[in-house]
Amino acid sequence: MSKPTPISGFPEWLPAQRMIEQNVIERIRDTFELYGFAPLETRAVEPMDQLLRKGETSKEVYVLRRLQEDPAAGGGDDALGLHFDLTVPFARFVLENSGKLQFPFRRYQIQKVWRGERPQEGRYREFLQADIDVVDRDTLPFHYDTEMPLVIGDAFRSLPIPPATILVNNRKVCEGFYRGLGLEDPDEVLRIIDKLDKIGPAKVGQLLADKIGATSAQIDACLRLAEISATDGSFVDAVRKLNVDNDLLNEGLEELSRVVEAAAEHAPGLVRAELKIARGLDYYTGTVYETQLQGYERFGSICSGGRYENLASTGSERFPGVGISIGVSRMLGLLFGHQALSVSRSVPTCVVVALPQEELRGRCDKIAQDLRSRRISTEVAPSAAKFGKQIRFAERRGIPYVWFPGADGEPDTVKDIRSGEQVEADAASWMPPAQDLLPAISVS
Amino acid sequence: MSKPTPISGFPEWLPAQRMIEQNVIERIRDTFELYGFAPLETRAVEPMDQLLRKGETSKEVYVLRRLQEDPAAGGGDDALGLHFDLTVPFARFVLENSGKLQFPFRRYQIQKVWRGERPQEGRYREFLQADIDVVDRDTLPFHYDTEMPLVIGDAFRSLPIPPATILVNNRKVCEGFYRGLGLEDPDEVLRIIDKLDKIGPAKVGQLLADKIGATSAQIDACLRLAEISATDGSFVDAVRKLNVDNDLLNEGLEELSRVVEAAAEHAPGLVRAELKIARGLDYYTGTVYETQLQGYERFGSICSGGRYENLASTGSERFPGVGISIGVSRMLGLLFGHQALSVSRSVPTCVVVALPQEELRGRCDKIAQDLRSRRISTEVAPSAAKFGKQIRFAERRGIPYVWFPGADGEPDTVKDIRSGEQVEADAASWMPPAQDLLPAISVS
Repeated sequence: MSKPTPISGFPEWLPAQRMIEQNVIERIRDTFELYGFAPLETRAVEPMDQLLRKGETSKEVYVLRRLQEDPAAGGGDDALGLHFDLTVPFARFVLENSGKLQFPFRRYQIQKVWRGERPQEGRYREFLQADIDVVDRDTLPFHYDTEMPLVIGDAFRSLPIPPATILVNNRKVCEGFYRGLGLEDPDEVLRIIDKLDKIGPAKVGQLLADKIGATSAQIDACLRLAEISATDGSFVDAVRKLNVDNDLLNEGLEELSRVVEAAAEHAPGLVRAELKIARGLDYYTGTVYETQLQGYERFGSICSGGRYENLASTGSERFPGVGISIGVSRMLGLLFGHQALSVSRSVPTCVVVALPQEELRGRCDKIAQDLRSRRISTEVAPSAAKFGKQIRFAERRGIPYVWFPGADGEPDTVKDIRSGEQVEADAASWMPPAQDLLPAISVS
Repeated sequence: MSKPTPISGFPEWLPAQRMIEQNVIERIRDTFELYGFAPLETRAVEPMDQLLRKGETSKEVYVLRRLQEDPAAGGGDDALGLHFDLTVPFARFVLENSGKLQFPFRRYQIQKVWRGERPQEGRYREFLQADIDVVDRDTLPFHYDTEMPLVIGDAFRSLPIPPATILVNNRKVCEGFYRGLGLEDPDEVLRIIDKLDKIGPAKVGQLLADKIGATSAQIDACLRLAEISATDGSFVDAVRKLNVDNDLLNEGLEELSRVVEAAAEHAPGLVRAELKIARGLDYYTGTVYETQLQGYERFGSICSGGRYENLASTGSERFPGVGISIGVSRMLGLLFGHQALSVSRSVPTCVVVALPQEELRGRCDKIAQDLRSRRISTEVAPSAAKFGKQIRFAERRGIPYVWFPGADGEPDTVKDIRSGEQVEADAASWMPPAQDLLPAISVS
């Protein structure tokens, strides 16, 4: 066969990058579990009718068909597609298993998702998401909306990444405000306002006039609302000054204040009310979250979510929820692309046991086993060779130590190939310094 | 919508089972990393021409098409399919990135794979595999064939599962033996012999006669070879007694002996030479592995692999390899199905902080933060309620401890709800016994 080439939109990390990703995933999981979120993994596929039910991304689905299947059958009602997020599958899982779960149900889910977008620069078609959600039967207390950013804040603080800011809004604020202004189609207003960053206020105003017949006073008020931003409760006064009165608006302001104030106490500077945030997915009904990495704001949100009252419901049962999702691939893709993360070696290996001659492989294997029994990652050299070559084997991979079996009853020695220091050592007791045991990740 | 139902072949674990699976994955990873295997994750899709290149499973592929794409284009030469194993994608990755990798390249890969089989009882269409492979440029030393079972043996010993036996054979033994007998199509003989467990020796003999015109002496020799089985080097004598002489047979016997003998030294009883093992995938060229769990032999192999000389090669480059793959979903599906594994709680949570009244949530959150800062997984009760209800909340999830904030300057207390013992405690210093910190998995 000829040499294969990458497929656009399907990123693959080299092992050194994958070690960083693994480490990031573990730290995220760790935080999620400290908050009592239980792990869940759903199948990669959902029936197409589930996937097409909600949200703007629903058109970007990969449809599956078995190779041996009649191609015509592949598009039928029972066709399967790859999930495009983890919220829709989670809602389906809750409905399917509601009799076996304890509510409120807190789960995390770290999985790949797929979007069947047109191939284009910089858009992933396969990427990793790390989600937390809480759902309850019938009603879900609001305090879970305040908890989400705190969990994410803790998770991000554990990661080797720049500081993050979580931007929060509440759909009730927007909808109430627009209704209070006399605008009848708040969803359409929201969709237009959502384009602010892309097309600017002048064009947004024009769209509001053209599409829903907004007056210049209404347009002005909508644009002024979208400008409001604060890391404390002061945004409430700023909204009040716009002189719109509406019950839903008041409810939304009260909710948004609670999220901002809880965060200000727990982690000052983490959360900012940002009243232009809308979120594309149309299943959100209240709080919405987006997240910017400091220094990478222009690349958009790397962690988003919100409250959904109606995503998981049948005729007789309803499970409102709130959740947030870290875009792991998106975040790491950004940081890798800017050479912002590095790792001290490209393999887990801490020690290479040098092999003086092939006949001594058994003895070298035994040394490796002794080291591994104390959790020191160890490889034996692939073949007998001059010691210089064995040291280069370690050097090329960033492995810090080479172990030399002693000849003729002499004691073994171990060499730190960075400093050149070589000392006598016993495989049954030697330990490397703690910082050398595992590959170290650093931010550059 | 109506209540969703499961999709045949796409198993989903409940959170308690997923906790067991996570734990199993971590222990497997741990062992792989102690042996210096670097992590890798490849994209879920491969071009169809890659997937259809090798192996009997290649017909069971899920083909993808973008929903917005012309359905007719979905079957074209550049169509994508979901990978059906992790070896083919790995071979492709090595060819694609050979300039960026260090050889010999040792990697592990733990991912879902998909097989577009007809829906039928007990066959997974989505399942998790955990693979290790070593590849090198041009030639790969044989000692890596002896290492594979040792790594797997260590991994399995770290798991809460019954003891495993790794069955080993070598295609050179079979091919050399068949050729030595004068049979000209050893691949076809192997495919027929592979049916032994399903159809029995009489029918296998008939097929050998019908399909390749084997004589009764040839059939008898083939069936006697397939009966040979030993946990030490004694199988060599058993083969010699069949009086077949062939260079490839001798080479295979020498290789197979090395695998069996290395294992007998490292882990007595782990590996057994079993000369009927064939493995369906046609890319194997030497050593082949299968694995049985004691007590679950009749359910087939839960860990398989082998040596492949030609899987990763272009016109100018060749990367022979050897690898083995744990069928994690298959193994856990078996054990879950037999109620052989259980976990002490269905959530990671170790402590629930009882909430006396909603106004005290801030104080309870602070207690939870103190506990989490010392890596104790903690939840605050979802709502204020009588303490009996809060204890039942913990009980239903198997959470061992409930924390009660002291009223009016009284000290806090923590109650072990299994024993009923309740003691004064300080959130800044209290630690649960080590065995309660994380959910405990047990074999039943």
